Amino acid sequence: MSFTLEKIADYLDAKFIGDPELEICGLGTLSAAEPGQLSFLANLAYKDQLDTTKASAVIIHSRQVDDCKTAAIILDNPYLGYAKVSELFDTLPNPDSNIHHSAVVSSSATIGRNVTLGPNSVVEDNAIIADNAVIGSGSVVGVNSRIGEGTRLHHNVSIYHDVVIGNQSIIHSGAIIGSDGFGFANNKGQWVKICQIGGVLIGDNTEIGANTTIDRGAMSDTKIGNGVKLDNQIQIAHNVEIGDHCAMAAGTMIAGSTKIGNCCTLAGGVGVAGHLSIVDGSHVTALTLVTKSITEPGSYSSGTAMSKTSEWRKSAARFRQLDDMAKRIKVLEKASEG
Amino acid sequence: MSFTLEKIADYLDAKFIGDPELEICGLGTLSAAEPGQLSFLANLAYKDQLDTTKASAVIIHSRQVDDCKTAAIILDNPYLGYAKVSELFDTLPNPDSNIHHSAVVSSSATIGRNVTLGPNSVVEDNAIIADNAVIGSGSVVGVNSRIGEGTRLHHNVSIYHDVVIGNQSIIHSGAIIGSDGFGFANNKGQWVKICQIGGVLIGDNTEIGANTTIDRGAMSDTKIGNGVKLDNQIQIAHNVEIGDHCAMAAGTMIAGSTKIGNCCTLAGGVGVAGHLSIVDGSHVTALTLVTKSITEPGSYSSGTAMSKTSEWRKSAARFRQLDDMAKRIKVLEKASEG
Amino acid sequence: MSFTLEKIADYLDAKFIGDPELEICGLGTLSAAEPGQLSFLANLAYKDQLDTTKASAVIIHSRQVDDCKTAAIILDNPYLGYAKVSELFDTLPNPDSNIHHSAVVSSSATIGRNVTLGPNSVVEDNAIIADNAVIGSGSVVGVNSRIGEGTRLHHNVSIYHDVVIGNQSIIHSGAIIGSDGFGFANNKGQWVKICQIGGVLIGDNTEIGANTTIDRGAMSDTKIGNGVKLDNQIQIAHNVEIGDHCAMAAGTMIAGSTKIGNCCTLAGGVGVAGHLSIVDGSHVTALTLVTKSITEPGSYSSGTAMSKTSEWRKSAARFRQLDDMAKRIKVLEKASEG
Repeated sequence: MSFTLEKIADYLDAKFIGDPELEICGLGTLSAAEPGQLSFLANLAYKDQLDTTKASAVIIHSRQVDDCKTAAIILDNPYLGYAKVSELFDTLPNPDSNIHHSAVVSSSATIGRNVTLGPNSVVEDNAIIADNAVIGSGSVVGVNSRIGEGTRLHHNVSIYHDVVIGNQSIIHSGAIIGSDGFGFANNKGQWVKICQIGGVLIGDNTEIGANTTIDRGAMSDTKIGNGVKLDNQIQIAHNVEIGDHCAMAAGTMIAGSTKIGNCCTLAGGVGVAGHLSIVDGSHVTALTLVTKSITEPGSYSSGTAMSKTSEWRKSAARFRQLDDMAKRIKVLEKASEG
Repeated sequence: MSFTLEKIADYLDAKFIGDPELEICGLGTLSAAEPGQLSFLANLAYKDQLDTTKASAVIIHSRQVDDCKTAAIILDNPYLGYAKVSELFDTLPNPDSNIHHSAVVSSSATIGRNVTLGPNSVVEDNAIIADNAVIGSGSVVGVNSRIGEGTRLHHNVSIYHDVVIGNQSIIHSGAIIGSDGFGFANNKGQWVKICQIGGVLIGDNTEIGANTTIDRGAMSDTKIGNGVKLDNQIQIAHNVEIGDHCAMAAGTMIAGSTKIGNCCTLAGGVGVAGHLSIVDGSHVTALTLVTKSITEPGSYSSGTAMSKTSEWRKSAARFRQLDDMAKRIKVLEKASEG
Repeated sequence: MSFTLEKIADYLDAKFIGDPELEICGLGTLSAAEPGQLSFLANLAYKDQLDTTKASAVIIHSRQVDDCKTAAIILDNPYLGYAKVSELFDTLPNPDSNIHHSAVVSSSATIGRNVTLGPNSVVEDNAIIADNAVIGSGSVVGVNSRIGEGTRLHHNVSIYHDVVIGNQSIIHSGAIIGSDGFGFANNKGQWVKICQIGGVLIGDNTEIGANTTIDRGAMSDTKIGNGVKLDNQIQIAHNVEIGDHCAMAAGTMIAGSTKIGNCCTLAGGVGVAGHLSIVDGSHVTALTLVTKSITEPGSYSSGTAMSKTSEWRKSAARFRQLDDMAKRIKVLEKASEG
């Protein structure tokens, strides 16, 4: 797999400097690239690596091009250029557009054109698999669910009933969509199940990470907008609504009925309590617990910074005394005034 | 799917106000319900919504019934009433009580009456599937394991060997029960595996969430009581014992050999260290780290409250100085006394 | 399954005290063992249990042997002895070295000698399954991937393409290896996917826990060394590198491109930010957020200690005032000096 410098620049609709016939056979960071590979300078902290990189060409902003000793492809957003060119070198096996003889397909299911159903995949009653969709080995699409055009389920994905996934989306292995929301009424100390009769509605161009779980709604649907990117092991509880173009890193958990606006970014391991609202464009840092609604865009955090355990123990012990300490400061201030 | 008001009231053994022939075709919250749907008032914070709801009937306590402008079903515990009636409207596909031709069943396994074995399910040697149990597509029941009467495994569940699951339980997709506990002895810097020869014992009427993992015991069994409800992505380590009627929200992790009493509730993302005891009726708030035993019922917490990141950074920096601050307060107090 | 005391002592290359013909039929802790079982004293906190244990024999250090009233096997490292003897009593079903008729194997795959391919397992194009490897029911090995000699994948494991797993490793159910790293370029508010064209490289003698996820590299490989033990529900992001003989407890998450040295131990629920380095031999306590590189071996922590929620609320409120409190102490000190 290789492309000439000119071909890549054309693909990116970009100007370039260097031999148009230069063969590019792969991608690498400035520090790790080998001869024949294309790199990029997106973060100026790495600018010095332009002097030492073994890359044969670099995607770069016009402002840095004079510092570039290799061939160059010039773009305003080099990182976006890298993203686009990564598709040329993708190693993901192409689907074979076949229905494998071991796939189990209900006679009431609707299967579109050029659909791939992998070995041991299952499509249940009244499910719809739209054109060009790919259902990986061992994946199950439940009753009445719909997989959109060109959407790809990797291996061992479980889709429950009444789940709608839009077009051109990617669902990674082990993801579970449509499992029951966690709802129970307490009856004299025992838990009585609340049947979860809503479904899940997921937009177009989404990506759902490996082993991420998205629960079905209690009465109405859990909703995930267009262009949303969820990393691995995320948990979305029942009736959560997530706006368009949000991105959440691994391990983040959103409790029931919380509404998250558009273009929010949540770092890894964040917990968001239930029945909250988070305004468009909010950012939450890693391992933060969000216990109240966020009404103003900005960056939010909780937790404490890391220390050596021996020092941390002292701080942690004092944390319990904080209210007492604050009161003693007040007493001292009064005495000082007095 | 619809039921008359009278039929629903009869089912709940409740009095009602309104046209007995009123057709109820679904459920909705007070704010989201549409005409023809039944709602409920459980949390008095939503009482004002009685004025504006489009629901055709509301399950309500007798104390609020005068404020209700719609038809009403009168119950002391409206939320419990809602839970019970949700079953009438459940959308979960019924099992077909068939053994699918693609299921792989050991000749030494015992399969009860009216059992459903979905496509590509696997039942290994000497496993027992009791009457009316349902094994979803792609689920595996390991050697010597037992699935109780009426228990349902959704799709792609993995049950290892020597796991006993009681009756009328629900195991969601991607749950793993009986994986090896994390046990190793260190031999000059290298880890030597401790074979995990115990099993897992789970009671009746339990629910295990999607992608939750429950490890087998090191020597004796990991034990989960009756009526326990575990949300998604929970981790139960080897030899944990959980009493009856506990409920744990998503992402909670219990380390090895910890014993949790009856009727405890753990919110999401809680971590409980190993070899602890937690007394009956304890509650732990979200993302708390439990590092010592809880001997007195009550609510327990750790962590810090969320702030804007810019303000949080200051607090986090000061957290490291807490011991110093406390000592300086003491010096000031001495000086003030002196 | 039983062994004489002499046979077990021989197996451990250890001296023993007691009847060489004593039959040992199982293992148990000092407090839980029943007659006929072998126990061990590894942690001296349990030494008093020597007086009351019902075990028939105990693996013990020579220094404690005089306090042992039962038969004894004498070893410098009793816990290691227990680990080794656990193998004799392992209950894990042996693989049958058969290729099940329902397994789906590409004609271009290479299958070694004595390989077990369980029901509904899938081996894709050009994959290699080395001698004595075991692929559990419903597990999938992707295109060009390699499973090393004697390595066992339990049920419903998903291995993507271009993943290499070394010899004698154990991969638990639901583990996902080679899923896409979480990489996107932002283009005017929308996320453009960066194809993840690297693979995953895992060493020998590793163990990967249930539902753990390991992402493939963005351009080069994600790398996990020899002898690494990962518990359940761990997340390893793209291009993470983990040295040899590390152990990580459940729920720990490592963000992209972080490098972890040899022999590090991370407790449960730890979060490590991206692009950091952690030096050999570091330890991180449970639920800690690591936000900067660790350059000196030692133990590191963050978070706060658990309190009753009512008291915690006061501390948490004061946490937000910490910077103000610190400044007020300074003012008081100046006044006091003045």
